[in-house]
Amino acid sequence: MDHAQRKHVTVLGAGLVGSAIVADLAQDADLAVTAIDASPAALARLAAAGVRIQVADLAAPGAIAPLVAEADLVVLAVPGFMGYAALRQVIEAGKPVVDISFFSEDAFGLDELAKAKGVTAVVDCGVAPGMANIIAGHVEGQLDRIDRYLCYVGGLPKLRRWPFEYKAVFSPIDVIEEYTRPARFVEHGQVVVRPALSGVELINLPGVGTLEAFNTDGLRSLMRTFAAPDMKEMTLRYPGHANLMAVLRESGFFGDKAILVDGQPVRPLALTARLLFDQWKLQPGEEDFTVMRVVIEGRKQGRRLRYTYDLLDSYDRATNTTSMARTTGYTCALVARQLLAGKFAQIGVCPPEYVGRTSGCYAHLSAGLAARGIVLAERVEEEEPSDSAV
Amino acid sequence: MDHAQRKHVTVLGAGLVGSAIVADLAQDADLAVTAIDASPAALARLAAAGVRIQVADLAAPGAIAPLVAEADLVVLAVPGFMGYAALRQVIEAGKPVVDISFFSEDAFGLDELAKAKGVTAVVDCGVAPGMANIIAGHVEGQLDRIDRYLCYVGGLPKLRRWPFEYKAVFSPIDVIEEYTRPARFVEHGQVVVRPALSGVELINLPGVGTLEAFNTDGLRSLMRTFAAPDMKEMTLRYPGHANLMAVLRESGFFGDKAILVDGQPVRPLALTARLLFDQWKLQPGEEDFTVMRVVIEGRKQGRRLRYTYDLLDSYDRATNTTSMARTTGYTCALVARQLLAGKFAQIGVCPPEYVGRTSGCYAHLSAGLAARGIVLAERVEEEEPSDSAV
Repeated sequence: MDHAQRKHVTVLGAGLVGSAIVADLAQDADLAVTAIDASPAALARLAAAGVRIQVADLAAPGAIAPLVAEADLVVLAVPGFMGYAALRQVIEAGKPVVDISFFSEDAFGLDELAKAKGVTAVVDCGVAPGMANIIAGHVEGQLDRIDRYLCYVGGLPKLRRWPFEYKAVFSPIDVIEEYTRPARFVEHGQVVVRPALSGVELINLPGVGTLEAFNTDGLRSLMRTFAAPDMKEMTLRYPGHANLMAVLRESGFFGDKAILVDGQPVRPLALTARLLFDQWKLQPGEEDFTVMRVVIEGRKQGRRLRYTYDLLDSYDRATNTTSMARTTGYTCALVARQLLAGKFAQIGVCPPEYVGRTSGCYAHLSAGLAARGIVLAERVEEEEPSDSAV
Repeated sequence: MDHAQRKHVTVLGAGLVGSAIVADLAQDADLAVTAIDASPAALARLAAAGVRIQVADLAAPGAIAPLVAEADLVVLAVPGFMGYAALRQVIEAGKPVVDISFFSEDAFGLDELAKAKGVTAVVDCGVAPGMANIIAGHVEGQLDRIDRYLCYVGGLPKLRRWPFEYKAVFSPIDVIEEYTRPARFVEHGQVVVRPALSGVELINLPGVGTLEAFNTDGLRSLMRTFAAPDMKEMTLRYPGHANLMAVLRESGFFGDKAILVDGQPVRPLALTARLLFDQWKLQPGEEDFTVMRVVIEGRKQGRRLRYTYDLLDSYDRATNTTSMARTTGYTCALVARQLLAGKFAQIGVCPPEYVGRTSGCYAHLSAGLAARGIVLAERVEEEEPSDSAV
């Protein structure tokens, strides 16, 4: 294929997830991939993949427009704190974009801009949010009415080590933030707020064993776009983790306000993150896995149906790619291909459930994940009518 | 009784334990009690008891000799860090002394000085060390040979509050020190060192329910003076406490070396103690209890005997005195009376087992505790010979 005919994809950010996306996209002969990052070391790992690399500080004002000028599509995989500003610049540059930077701002704040620019901007395009939302959008199309959405999701080390039995593939600060931010979910059509780490329950998952699930604030765009009267996302960890985190939180170790220690102000959270950083760091070669169960219940022509999706994916020893990077990055890379192929072309800021609502997109994603060894098992059951329940 | 005939006791330190000692000694018409402390507020509480009070900085160089000049006996109840220096000064002043300051230095370092001065200096005279040692010395006299000494001891709040279910009547730093200092005990005649908080086991105690026991470094003088081939002291807490403490310790929260946090050096232990201080503080009116079981096994004329002593004492609502202050302070006050009455007159530094070895001292202590509502139940059982064990 002639180079001029290849489509250009520019991936901003070559961290753990960004580099998995780059490596995946670079497999396609009809794509020309450029990876841009501030770290030459991060980029050096990608040079072998036949990828164009470029060192640039993506946080510098006005940096992004010239970097994406030639791109047919942009993938945004920068750290969350700089995600929103970067996304705005990509949209202003008029480029379709798939974003996995998972920023804390409301992405819909850029919807008008995206519509004015005629740009498709898919945000939150990882696992949960991401794959789970695509499933939700897909199932919505199969049912007349949705009664319930429930998502259990977690990324865990294969080997459990006392006491936390947990490894973070990103900063402990970001994980701790999930353990402190109140969890919002929907019950009987009402928004409910509960403390993070509350509602601990045990769940047995095939191939995994018993994990614990607890409330975290993970519904994001579904709170706004998805018309289920009951919706909840729960985080999965090995049993006991939530209690330890609650002990630390309630004892003040996650406090962000400085207190006086030996006469000087110290933020407890900063010390805690510092101490946990080493313990929570996935060591080179240390294997992780990703597990997710999405349960959606609803009605179709008077029948009560329950759709259950089970994801279980492991670290890839052949390429030393974490499961977190695989599941997050490949979902993003597959949706990027859907944009490039015109399979998804909705203008504006689009959470992944919009992709799932679009005919063919879920099937393409599911097949693409399967081709990469990521199994997403679907099960549809008919429920007894609740009237007959004891 | 004429004032001139009364014996003078000077109590150095009027904290929680010191003031309980003062109040107890002040009940005796034949004692003239002087309480000395740096804090006028601490002393003010004692003025009503008909006690002479005096404000003085006991840590000032040379402060103690003039303060104890008229005393027939001194009770030392200062914070541990200043205990050794204060004891030296009392001995140098030639005064008999009973000490409950529980300092970390080796008290036998003052033995020669005490002997040269012809002074009786009883140290570590609280519960454990203290009452437990007196029991050990007492039982030693009943047996031909000791096989085993085991002491379970703890002070706990009556109401359990998640997560720690613990309150400290002194600084969290001192408690944490018990959780970090390696625990020494004796097995088969050999000194064994294990991590603090190790060897967690559950124990059911009458009137208390189930507690957990774990290794701490509490044998102190018994390691040197007591000829049992197996000796161990274990700390009692509500179940789960040891694991939480081990999590904090192994995660670095008890570290005493400064680490960089937000660019400045911070000692994790200092932050942790600061955070736990409020949570571990016994609130006014919050009730505590003290529980101890001492088990001593040995031989007497070919019979295998097991002596079990069970102490259970509670907060005194009538006087708002903590059980910790009662059990510690009254033991000290009763031994002080034994010195004043000439019941115990051994010259030199004397750990409390020396008191227990002295005829009549245990019986006097036990009766005195009973008169104060502190029950120390004794049980002697004959064991089956171990040869017949399965």
